[in-house]
Amino acid sequence: MRVIQRSALAAFAAGAMVLAFGTGQAHAADADLDAIRSAVTKGHDATVKRLQDWIAHPAIAAEDRGYPDGAEYMAQLARDAGFQQAKVIRTDGKPGVFATLDAGAEKTVGLYFMYDVKQFDPGEWSSPPLEARLVDKPGLGKVIVGRGAVNQKGPETAFLAALHAIRAAGRKPPVNLVLVAEGEEEIGSPHIAQLVRNPEVEAALRRTIGVFMPASMQSLDGVVTVNLGSKGVVELELVASGEKWGRGPSKDIHSSLKAMVDSPAWRLVKALDTLVSDDGNAIAIDDYPKPRPMSDSEKQMIAEATRRRSEAQAKQQLGVQHWIDDLPWQQANERLESQPTVNIEGLVGGYTGPGGKTVLPHRAVAKLDLRLVPDMKAADAVAALKAHLARRGFGDIEVNVTGGYDPTSTSADAPLIQAQVATLKKLGIDPLLWPRNAGSYPGYVFTDAPLQLAAGHFGLGHGSGAHGPDEYYLIESGNPKVQGLDGATMSFVEYLYQLAK
Amino acid sequence: MRVIQRSALAAFAAGAMVLAFGTGQAHAADADLDAIRSAVTKGHDATVKRLQDWIAHPAIAAEDRGYPDGAEYMAQLARDAGFQQAKVIRTDGKPGVFATLDAGAEKTVGLYFMYDVKQFDPGEWSSPPLEARLVDKPGLGKVIVGRGAVNQKGPETAFLAALHAIRAAGRKPPVNLVLVAEGEEEIGSPHIAQLVRNPEVEAALRRTIGVFMPASMQSLDGVVTVNLGSKGVVELELVASGEKWGRGPSKDIHSSLKAMVDSPAWRLVKALDTLVSDDGNAIAIDDYPKPRPMSDSEKQMIAEATRRRSEAQAKQQLGVQHWIDDLPWQQANERLESQPTVNIEGLVGGYTGPGGKTVLPHRAVAKLDLRLVPDMKAADAVAALKAHLARRGFGDIEVNVTGGYDPTSTSADAPLIQAQVATLKKLGIDPLLWPRNAGSYPGYVFTDAPLQLAAGHFGLGHGSGAHGPDEYYLIESGNPKVQGLDGATMSFVEYLYQLAK
Repeated sequence: MRVIQRSALAAFAAGAMVLAFGTGQAHAADADLDAIRSAVTKGHDATVKRLQDWIAHPAIAAEDRGYPDGAEYMAQLARDAGFQQAKVIRTDGKPGVFATLDAGAEKTVGLYFMYDVKQFDPGEWSSPPLEARLVDKPGLGKVIVGRGAVNQKGPETAFLAALHAIRAAGRKPPVNLVLVAEGEEEIGSPHIAQLVRNPEVEAALRRTIGVFMPASMQSLDGVVTVNLGSKGVVELELVASGEKWGRGPSKDIHSSLKAMVDSPAWRLVKALDTLVSDDGNAIAIDDYPKPRPMSDSEKQMIAEATRRRSEAQAKQQLGVQHWIDDLPWQQANERLESQPTVNIEGLVGGYTGPGGKTVLPHRAVAKLDLRLVPDMKAADAVAALKAHLARRGFGDIEVNVTGGYDPTSTSADAPLIQAQVATLKKLGIDPLLWPRNAGSYPGYVFTDAPLQLAAGHFGLGHGSGAHGPDEYYLIESGNPKVQGLDGATMSFVEYLYQLAK
Repeated sequence: MRVIQRSALAAFAAGAMVLAFGTGQAHAADADLDAIRSAVTKGHDATVKRLQDWIAHPAIAAEDRGYPDGAEYMAQLARDAGFQQAKVIRTDGKPGVFATLDAGAEKTVGLYFMYDVKQFDPGEWSSPPLEARLVDKPGLGKVIVGRGAVNQKGPETAFLAALHAIRAAGRKPPVNLVLVAEGEEEIGSPHIAQLVRNPEVEAALRRTIGVFMPASMQSLDGVVTVNLGSKGVVELELVASGEKWGRGPSKDIHSSLKAMVDSPAWRLVKALDTLVSDDGNAIAIDDYPKPRPMSDSEKQMIAEATRRRSEAQAKQQLGVQHWIDDLPWQQANERLESQPTVNIEGLVGGYTGPGGKTVLPHRAVAKLDLRLVPDMKAADAVAALKAHLARRGFGDIEVNVTGGYDPTSTSADAPLIQAQVATLKKLGIDPLLWPRNAGSYPGYVFTDAPLQLAAGHFGLGHGSGAHGPDEYYLIESGNPKVQGLDGATMSFVEYLYQLAK
């Protein structure tokens, strides 16, 4: 419970509650917003400290690091921000957190948080990944560099800062809140259904008008995109081994024996080769689930977005000279939105250190992720992969699924989304609508049966480097096109008042 | 110079030299051998200590660890054993050692040592790899477990112990010795030619009747094989990268972008796929150098050897259930002897840690070793590989050769080999002749122009686990079919006297 003593902030508005808004008419007057904005500014340093402290306490599911502490920490963060109850919910994997904030409001909004972060290799970072240092980033401003800074602790901290500021300004939140936070997002959310379908959690979520995750939606050119869902994903390992194959060695042996002993590493290469086209881009798995064709409205969204987004900037940020098939910008984005992928995340076999080592490995592994678009199902993709391998004579190659879930979609007409668009327009931003995030989050657990809620992401602000080194979140913006921490916090305040309408 | 103080052994026969043999008639009388054998027994504990101390001081070229200390250590070991001069010879890589022992004998014999060892991962070992503990191995006896125990410090220590014992028994070695020791054997001996072609070294080697490396030749069933050479080898890395390709990312990016960005990891898989047949066993590189067909005498050697060797034991030791193509034992051995290989030593790309990480890697590497049989040349193999990749459109894939050399062959009629056979027969062992070791050592530097010397390996004794965990060398044999340290030492004594004839 290392979170509690970090500042005097938790007490700074105790007892100062006034009933500012009647339920059902929770419109924020300019005066209210001015007071909250002032509280956001006053709370800035405490919020930065809160984010730094959280980054210093990582929970990393792949390494079984930081549990159950990470869940307790998350629950305490919720309590500190005004949730009247917050508790740790056990699953068969890492625990989740369930919290509620009853503001006596008419509407209730769901929140989806993740408290875990991705693994990291400190040697790759220019600033220690758990120290969350404030660093000047030329042309951008002051950023916090740290693991989880943007994915997702920075935006989540900004959201919690909105609640702190509303309370500090003597107001009550204009909506009630139901928070679910998971600790396995970065391994593919294998137990989120257990968390969300906990009877108490599910009953609370049923009362919401939808669920959103705090995010930093501003790209460097200031463009803000409202996503209408996300791709699904499956993460898995393909393992070729002498043990399962019945050929090749059952332990690493001297490489000279390759002249008389079969090689599981070559077997893995041959199996992998059958999964994609020669250019590595088209999926060649037999009977693989097919993507739903793009709708006209999706195509229109993409056309509009690519008109406004900078291709040169995207290429420069990614270090990419050509899109697949040398596609022009718009078609490359259509491909991004409409196509599933089979990606090699990692290859690991035999000797992986510096130089060489003359071994014939008994085992080789390819770490894959499969992205899924509507109406593909994760289970169908895995079944097709297994059947494909078996049919091609690679039935001995293990398919070890570590996590995954279906794609998720929400209608542009949903109040949750309409409130996003309205909030952004009020803040002077004309958002792009985007068919789906090409990445993945387990929104299916909210949008699919039985809940069938709207779900999305929201928040101004900017950050980058998720999953890589030098991940950062913008704190003090020196770029007029993007908001820093306080602007992000205010965007959540505005969104909550919009949702209450 | 950590070697010097390890025991009082170096002094134990000082000044006790007597001239036991005239040059040209250096036959060991039984009494001489008895005296030396007694000295071997007396020196046993000191020899074990010498081996343990050496193992505790590894030199590992791939990790740039233990240099130049490893060379100084080697030179001191030679001086301690009676070499009158031993010096470190610089190369463009790790230094070598050159030492001479002038016994006033008629004949001079060359010795090839390696003082470096393979990398190791202590976590894989049941006994710490640098502690060289004495461990009871059921059914075998007392072994030393440590990195380099059998490859090659154990046999080399046994050879040096032979010199110590000859001196301790008041005798002089029956032949003069020229020692070259390299420190880069485990990375493919990239600078051994610089060492051997040093004018002083080359002139000394020219006076020898051939060069041998101390080895432990006894397999568990007591069979001893005299190798008439070794395969050549090339170690290299194939590197696919966005940077060289001009497609895909120049740094690791989020895996969701696979839908619009090409993948260097898939490119590596596709390039690898073209190098070998579907079963991973036949080389499919265009215009690759071809092996020389087996001769009748080679086939006869293999037929004789496979009659005497236990297939079941070989399979059990390697953890192999089937040879390539389900070949019977003799044909599997013909394949081992006659065929070149393209082996994957290691695959490294993207995220290699526990669990998954959703990245699209900008770079992927396959570590390969290519084994070569006569009359293939290492340079031709590399050139064919590069041309093949370029012709298939993979010209951007880097071929980074880290080491390698041509195959080496010596005639069964060479006095160096004949003396091996005679020594073994005198010791009651009927050796197998074997066309070549399927592994590699840089014997070409001795057997090819300009020196054109005979070269080989010799020594009784037993060990296993070279390059893997729990490498060991047998010290006290509990198995009547194999010799321990003292028996190995005596085999070198006998061999030297045989060579002197």
